[in-house]
Amino acid sequence: MYAERISGLKSSAIREILKITSRPGIISFAGGLPAPELFPEKEIAEAAQDIFTKYGTSVLQYSVTEGLLTLREKISAMLDPDASHTGPQNIIITHGSQQGLDLISKLYLEKGRVVFTETPSYLGAIQAFRLFQVDILPIASDEDGIQPEGLLKAIKKQRPALIYLMPNFQNPTGVSLSLERRKQVVDIVKEHDLLLLEDDPYGDLFFSGEKMPSLFTLGRSHNFIYMSSFSKTIAPGLRIAYIAGDEKMISKLAVVKQGTDLQTNTFGQYLVNEYLESGRYNSHKDLLRQTYKQRRDCMLAAIDKYFPASVSRNCPNGGMFLWVRLPEQYMAGHILLKCLEKKVAFVPGQEFYSDGSGENTIRLNFSNATSENIEEGIKRIGEVLKVEGL
Amino acid sequence: MYAERISGLKSSAIREILKITSRPGIISFAGGLPAPELFPEKEIAEAAQDIFTKYGTSVLQYSVTEGLLTLREKISAMLDPDASHTGPQNIIITHGSQQGLDLISKLYLEKGRVVFTETPSYLGAIQAFRLFQVDILPIASDEDGIQPEGLLKAIKKQRPALIYLMPNFQNPTGVSLSLERRKQVVDIVKEHDLLLLEDDPYGDLFFSGEKMPSLFTLGRSHNFIYMSSFSKTIAPGLRIAYIAGDEKMISKLAVVKQGTDLQTNTFGQYLVNEYLESGRYNSHKDLLRQTYKQRRDCMLAAIDKYFPASVSRNCPNGGMFLWVRLPEQYMAGHILLKCLEKKVAFVPGQEFYSDGSGENTIRLNFSNATSENIEEGIKRIGEVLKVEGL
Repeated sequence: MYAERISGLKSSAIREILKITSRPGIISFAGGLPAPELFPEKEIAEAAQDIFTKYGTSVLQYSVTEGLLTLREKISAMLDPDASHTGPQNIIITHGSQQGLDLISKLYLEKGRVVFTETPSYLGAIQAFRLFQVDILPIASDEDGIQPEGLLKAIKKQRPALIYLMPNFQNPTGVSLSLERRKQVVDIVKEHDLLLLEDDPYGDLFFSGEKMPSLFTLGRSHNFIYMSSFSKTIAPGLRIAYIAGDEKMISKLAVVKQGTDLQTNTFGQYLVNEYLESGRYNSHKDLLRQTYKQRRDCMLAAIDKYFPASVSRNCPNGGMFLWVRLPEQYMAGHILLKCLEKKVAFVPGQEFYSDGSGENTIRLNFSNATSENIEEGIKRIGEVLKVEGL
Repeated sequence: MYAERISGLKSSAIREILKITSRPGIISFAGGLPAPELFPEKEIAEAAQDIFTKYGTSVLQYSVTEGLLTLREKISAMLDPDASHTGPQNIIITHGSQQGLDLISKLYLEKGRVVFTETPSYLGAIQAFRLFQVDILPIASDEDGIQPEGLLKAIKKQRPALIYLMPNFQNPTGVSLSLERRKQVVDIVKEHDLLLLEDDPYGDLFFSGEKMPSLFTLGRSHNFIYMSSFSKTIAPGLRIAYIAGDEKMISKLAVVKQGTDLQTNTFGQYLVNEYLESGRYNSHKDLLRQTYKQRRDCMLAAIDKYFPASVSRNCPNGGMFLWVRLPEQYMAGHILLKCLEKKVAFVPGQEFYSDGSGENTIRLNFSNATSENIEEGIKRIGEVLKVEGL
């Protein structure tokens, strides 16, 4: 007999769509995949030799639950170059960010508790939280991210066990939380002594200006947990990500991780550590930013050329996704079926609304397609939209 | 505020002992580490190049939650060469066996349910189950494994959500479930339509005869789940293990794994797959069996030479551990403190008793020490035992 938490659990519609879109000939804007042709393949292959020379059999052996010290030192130096508030004792390596969500859920969530999220919010997070039987309360959000007044109003009604935000180039919309709102959210969280989880897989993929300060850095207190990953900036197949936070919490997470999977794969940790030591990481991130910006621009131009005027889109300053809104009466799920017939795919935005709204929205991924495919794919979607009467 | 499941959660004493024993000069029989000098280091380093040549950037990209199809095909062929009851659809790849325990717990366990285990049982499993707030009921066990009559008696009192067994060279005792009892347990499980989880990380490390049939193979029904790992036979740092079972359950586990960590690291899966394709796996397992048998024999001889006659030990036919029993009034935890002063370590067996008994027992690991260190370390423990009056 399954546990109660399993009732209502369903496979991510995205994963189901991805099964269809892996068929040859389909142009897919559905996945959240980084561009494989940009992976530092040669450098990782080299690293896979060098780590044996440097560290011998350690790269294949069991290691500590918290993760390799040298890797945690590098991560804490990235987050806080002055080491004024973050050291390796504030970091735990996780098997991808999705595991970070699971471990934090295990530590803080249970039936009857509430998690506040942006609207819409990352589907993987909603799935992780739901396994712990919490209620999810979406807070009103707009093109500048979550609305502080909406957050305050909700807090007055009930105290959340966790506030979950993706402040940089959010999945699914590509929206970022403005600097002014970051400060307001930090103040609210501190004033009410709440717990905020900041998920930041895309923060380094900005297309202009510089990286905005994290809530974790602005807040500098036990109220803020930060998560990021090397999946989008090195390679997702290694599954190396991390959580940063209060030292006491990190120790508790380590005990939870012991019972969950003992430790993150040693080999992948050494590969990422070696790649970081090679000094190539910064120029590689520059390459990703340039390429993804070109693809975003290409997609925006194609949308403006091929989509009916009644369809609106945003213009994210980074990340891997942009967001399209159809007129209210149109259902993106229906449009998707028609698009699949024309061999082009996307994810209906409704998937990311925990309350089931957002039927007329579409998430488009621009990181994992060539310019030619972006032009052709958007053209095909545009044709479907016109046939459907938009 | 932590979730209720966290109350009473503590770090594994073994992990704490391991922190001490990693200091130089300590002879440790405490860990459960495979011998690193036997890792197929050269072959894995080669595989780390070959997989780039064969599969390109796929080895660094996201992959399916269930795991690489070609690896799952190889695993199902190992479990069932005729493919008469097991195919790749019956397999999911996990991030180590510990994650298998977590995923199965998520699917089946919750507060108020009961798990039956052997006595003593694997600490990592007890930790995983406790995170899901179940009661753990240890069933009487002896040198042939769990006692079927004890199991039957317990079932008549309450229905377990799960029966957890490690039938081959069990951690911590090294004991195996006899063939006769395997058949009895299978009959009991089927007759009462129960769910049995068979954890088999050490099954291939037999020192004489051949591998005993698994309960999964004897049972061939939805009542049996089988788990094993490449951690002990290739390398633990890759974290590649698997669950085999009913196809419907495997699909459910995949949905649970989506929310838990998306997928097991792609790179490690390709490495293991490549190593299996090299055809070296069988001869490598032969080498492990020979070496570990020599170390076991060396430890047995040293115990018989240096330990007082009042101390008893067993003689496991495989795996990585053997089991020592002091006279009833002696406490292994106290002996350990004295041994640490003499720079030798082990794990008090009490750690593996979910009811806190077993104070006079000791787990000794023989896979991760040279013959010289085994002789010297056992001699030191023997000296402490004599000083303590045994």
